[in-house]
Amino acid sequence: MSLRPHLPILDWGRRYNRQTLTSDLVAAVIVTIMLIPQSLAYALLAGLPPEMGLYASILPLIAYAIFGTSSALAVGPVAVISLMTAAAVGRIAAEGSADYASAAIMLAGLSGLMLLGMGLFRLGFIANFLSHPVISGFITASGIIIATSQVGGLLGIRTEGHAMPDLLASIFANLGAIHWPTFAIGLLSLVLLIWMRRDLGRLLERMGMNRSVSRIIVRAGPVFVVFLTMALSAGLDLGARGVALVGEVPQGLPLLSLPSFNLGTLQALVVPALIISVVGFVESISVAQTLAAKRRERVDPNQELIGLGASNVAASLGGGYPVTGGFARSVVNFDAGAATPAAGAFTAIGIAGATLLLTPVLAVLPKATLAATIVIAVLTLVDFSILRRAWRYSRADFAAVAITLLGTLVFGVETGISLGVAASILVFLYRSSKPHAAIVGQVPGTEHYRNVKRHKVDTMPGVLSIRVDESLYFANARYLEDLVYGEVADRPGLTDVVLLCSAVNAIDMSALESLEAIHARLADLGVRLHLSEVKGPVMDRLEASDFLDHLSGAVHLSHHQAMCAIAALRAEGAGAPAMPEERTA
Amino acid sequence: MSLRPHLPILDWGRRYNRQTLTSDLVAAVIVTIMLIPQSLAYALLAGLPPEMGLYASILPLIAYAIFGTSSALAVGPVAVISLMTAAAVGRIAAEGSADYASAAIMLAGLSGLMLLGMGLFRLGFIANFLSHPVISGFITASGIIIATSQVGGLLGIRTEGHAMPDLLASIFANLGAIHWPTFAIGLLSLVLLIWMRRDLGRLLERMGMNRSVSRIIVRAGPVFVVFLTMALSAGLDLGARGVALVGEVPQGLPLLSLPSFNLGTLQALVVPALIISVVGFVESISVAQTLAAKRRERVDPNQELIGLGASNVAASLGGGYPVTGGFARSVVNFDAGAATPAAGAFTAIGIAGATLLLTPVLAVLPKATLAATIVIAVLTLVDFSILRRAWRYSRADFAAVAITLLGTLVFGVETGISLGVAASILVFLYRSSKPHAAIVGQVPGTEHYRNVKRHKVDTMPGVLSIRVDESLYFANARYLEDLVYGEVADRPGLTDVVLLCSAVNAIDMSALESLEAIHARLADLGVRLHLSEVKGPVMDRLEASDFLDHLSGAVHLSHHQAMCAIAALRAEGAGAPAMPEERTA
Repeated sequence: MSLRPHLPILDWGRRYNRQTLTSDLVAAVIVTIMLIPQSLAYALLAGLPPEMGLYASILPLIAYAIFGTSSALAVGPVAVISLMTAAAVGRIAAEGSADYASAAIMLAGLSGLMLLGMGLFRLGFIANFLSHPVISGFITASGIIIATSQVGGLLGIRTEGHAMPDLLASIFANLGAIHWPTFAIGLLSLVLLIWMRRDLGRLLERMGMNRSVSRIIVRAGPVFVVFLTMALSAGLDLGARGVALVGEVPQGLPLLSLPSFNLGTLQALVVPALIISVVGFVESISVAQTLAAKRRERVDPNQELIGLGASNVAASLGGGYPVTGGFARSVVNFDAGAATPAAGAFTAIGIAGATLLLTPVLAVLPKATLAATIVIAVLTLVDFSILRRAWRYSRADFAAVAITLLGTLVFGVETGISLGVAASILVFLYRSSKPHAAIVGQVPGTEHYRNVKRHKVDTMPGVLSIRVDESLYFANARYLEDLVYGEVADRPGLTDVVLLCSAVNAIDMSALESLEAIHARLADLGVRLHLSEVKGPVMDRLEASDFLDHLSGAVHLSHHQAMCAIAALRAEGAGAPAMPEERTA
Repeated sequence: MSLRPHLPILDWGRRYNRQTLTSDLVAAVIVTIMLIPQSLAYALLAGLPPEMGLYASILPLIAYAIFGTSSALAVGPVAVISLMTAAAVGRIAAEGSADYASAAIMLAGLSGLMLLGMGLFRLGFIANFLSHPVISGFITASGIIIATSQVGGLLGIRTEGHAMPDLLASIFANLGAIHWPTFAIGLLSLVLLIWMRRDLGRLLERMGMNRSVSRIIVRAGPVFVVFLTMALSAGLDLGARGVALVGEVPQGLPLLSLPSFNLGTLQALVVPALIISVVGFVESISVAQTLAAKRRERVDPNQELIGLGASNVAASLGGGYPVTGGFARSVVNFDAGAATPAAGAFTAIGIAGATLLLTPVLAVLPKATLAATIVIAVLTLVDFSILRRAWRYSRADFAAVAITLLGTLVFGVETGISLGVAASILVFLYRSSKPHAAIVGQVPGTEHYRNVKRHKVDTMPGVLSIRVDESLYFANARYLEDLVYGEVADRPGLTDVVLLCSAVNAIDMSALESLEAIHARLADLGVRLHLSEVKGPVMDRLEASDFLDHLSGAVHLSHHQAMCAIAALRAEGAGAPAMPEERTA
């Protein structure tokens, strides 16, 4: 087994040249500027000291550069995963305690190992179970929760909880304690950020700036707000007026260390780590695939699992917390021209430099500014249009969106997404347990057989053709029995029943039992049972049983051939076989 | 809303006459004789005082006679449900305590209400999720556990637990304490019971007895053993020698009473009650349907839920524990000629009489005899042939059997059956997440298109026809993308891709997203996307979205028409459309 397929760096590393280096360096500078306030803010969102956000933006980026396949994906702390980290770790330890931080570090390691395992065993399909409606509902609900959780930071009041009921209750309970200087800084930051996002780009373009440059400046906007409010904070001595500041951040880089290991904590983190892994992977792979398609590149999902897994293990070893590919910063990276994963490694160097040099000045940064950047960043996640689209498309998809959305808002991230996944699986099973079935007849002049209710078709008296539009399996086996018995009961002169199996993709053992019961019941009534258009894999299964050995009718390649054969049988005067069981015995 | 459909007694009651009365009375006498030792034995299996088994064989039978639809089904305590009761209640209270008995009564009430609810809301399809392999594995494992749990009773030693590890450990730990007189009585009972079951029928027939009469006598065999060992027990004063006897059984009938209500206990019983309800229903409905089919009668599953629900509520009100339709006694009832559900009501009167009259003599009955009757009764449940048949049919079904069987043996009934259900659902989802797909070509001289790998077929160069044999939904949406991209990448000169949708029974919103992604990717490559043989319900969905509005190709009624239309397009020199997105914009 060669390591080569698991080390994409060996491929793009060979083609590396001065041009790609320049592109990567430019992109890295821009992403670094964008990532500094984000790293600090998301660490606070996760309830962690700000330096852990910076740490999570160093080693993980280098790991992804070695193992990842996307040239544009920028990994690091992201909003939704930070919220999920807070929810998971908050159940184990008190925010601010050493146990809290070490549980977050352990969570990153566990999630990293799970992602690595999923990649090595090619289990990426697990991510498929997060359906599009579930992801959409979950991201929207998370955006709302995150924005609400920052209201406290903007108003200078305490809030609690990681779901709406607790958050809203604590906001209302503390509304009287608004800290006005904090509120002023928060509001100023918010207004500035909104203005930059809404109007700055147009203004710059009107001033003659190249569009892609102006877009990058807009994306880097939060850094300007950070500097402005730091200046205000230092000049007006806001710390002394009770405005919460970031405070002392340890200068220097984290030492590589194995996360402390505690069996009880580990057990409590297994389920959250799994959910975080899958959600992080789905978020990341969607961004990577979207950007890859624009450049006609391809990302390998299983190698992406390994890349993300390595990043999270690196986050854990380097004192960070769970990371994944972020949407906004990956788009900036792409727009800024990142040509290879090396751009990420250069960004890591940039963040490491910032950690060494900038931390003394960051101490005066008001937390309200970070809260404002979080609110602005997550509002783009909130998208209620999915509710309308899902409603139009199907009630089942709407139910999945609505359950995930409400479940997440009310019960928090883990319960919400679990409810959503369970709901989409149940809906799928329920639907397939009551399959669509049609009585079919011949489209005149053709060899095609279609639903008698939807098309003008001819049927042969005495012969019943049923097409079941579903695989036959335990959940619908009984339904099939009821269907056939019901239709047969309504047709006294019946001699033959043909099951048109073009849409039957599998027959499991429970369904085989039901087919045998149907066969026996029809034989008692002197009615032959035929199958037509049985698919190869299904035929293989039936041949492994003894069902075909005593079948009163026959298996026909096409439904038309079945009808011709039955017409011939009936013309022979066979009519209904008197004792079909004896006839075939 | 008329009550009529929920009171089948109003139907058969009208047609009741002297002949049906005679048949029902004969059947009732025979079933009563069979049911007395069974009721006592299964109550002991459930860890309950013996009279509760008798109580569970009175009111529930009358309730079923009013609400049930099967003329042959005999409800009452059964082995598997008794084991499940012991497992559920044993977690809440100590065996032998008043709380234990009242929890069992509450369990019957809760299960009854659930069954009634499932019947009224027509939720009988829930039972479909217990697939045939899961039920088979579960019943076999339960039979083994029950037989093992009776080893203690046969040897006169204490055993503990409701799963194999605990049971075996406690048997081995106490093997030194075998009580020899008890062992002698147990062995005698076992040998007699085995002899009766194996040889008595043949002997009686050889002596000229009618076959159906001899079968009934054999089924009633345990009663003779009961009387014999009671005589031995009284004659040898076995109680004084330390043989465990049934002991004082309260004489008289239970007063109707509402079960005592305790919120904590109730909550702990919700899940077991649900599992007991579903397992009991599946067991009961299979027996009822099998016997009904023999007489060309029909049982209504939703009304059966109501019948069983009423029986369990009655069991609860009358001081019994959960009941369901038993296989062996229903067959005896059927063979003895039971013509209507009234036979059950007469059986109830018989048991009530026995409770009034026989209880004083039952006090000397050795418990070892009851243990022997249980062992013999449940050994018929054990059927390992399902493992072989499932292995031959499919590995997935085998996995479901094996997981249920081992899970039940090792972890007990509730965990075992839950594991089985989860495994069969996961296997189904996993399978459908990697659907079978085929490249198809034309069967020469016909309008049929079949798998190029299985049939000799013709394909048109530049056109790719893919048939996906599965509904498209969240779990396989990405798989479809990968499949199409992979096949397209291997075919440079491609102009058209046709998805043959005859086996696509549904397209959910996640799959629609994937179809749109495929469409966009193909458009970028200058390849048209067509659909053929789209089913009506799927077409309705697609028309509710805007997918069809910008489709680069077309939707064709049959795959043959699609190929003809594409051939025409290509003959026009259209080749690959240069900019399909603009063309259709």
